[in-house]
Amino acid sequence: MFHHIVLLELQPDTPDDAVDELVDSLRRLPDVIETIRTYRVERDAGLAADNATVAVVAGFDDEDGFVVYRDHPVHQAVIAELIRPRLVRRSALQHHD
Amino acid sequence: MFHHIVLLELQPDTPDDAVDELVDSLRRLPDVIETIRTYRVERDAGLAADNATVAVVAGFDDEDGFVVYRDHPVHQAVIAELIRPRLVRRSALQHHD
Repeated sequence: MFHHIVLLELQPDTPDDAVDELVDSLRRLPDVIETIRTYRVERDAGLAADNATVAVVAGFDDEDGFVVYRDHPVHQAVIAELIRPRLVRRSALQHHD
Repeated sequence: MFHHIVLLELQPDTPDDAVDELVDSLRRLPDVIETIRTYRVERDAGLAADNATVAVVAGFDDEDGFVVYRDHPVHQAVIAELIRPRLVRRSALQHHD
């Protein structure tokens, strides 16, 4: 498996509804991107003030499957319309099993 | 389950041996911190230049188990001696199942 982990820190004034819309839009990606094998999108539990806002943890058969996801137009639309306008910073990492 | 995800970006001049030592030290924590249920420490695969360096993905029975891990002196020693001196930035998130 090839794993992809992303932490998104959104602007602190991001409305709760906007975070929900972003999370829901990401959670629909496995319906349209067939290389996704496992996919979790989670909101922070709120224990630490400097935490990220949303985590994405995704699994693919291999690096090629990840690249299909990364570059998929529906994914890119979610990034451009719902994530980037609210983003403070993004941290990511990929690893093999 | 209560999940904890951390991405560590280390200084780009960090020697490979120092990253290995840090990863190995973290991977020994489940031997001494009994509230850890699942624990993965992974180095970045190197696909993107702006990626984090090391990911930690940990699972606990509940928030209390996470707090024991967070504050454990052996964990704090790894942070103080091996992580903090090399750290550019840290991003973290916790979530319930």
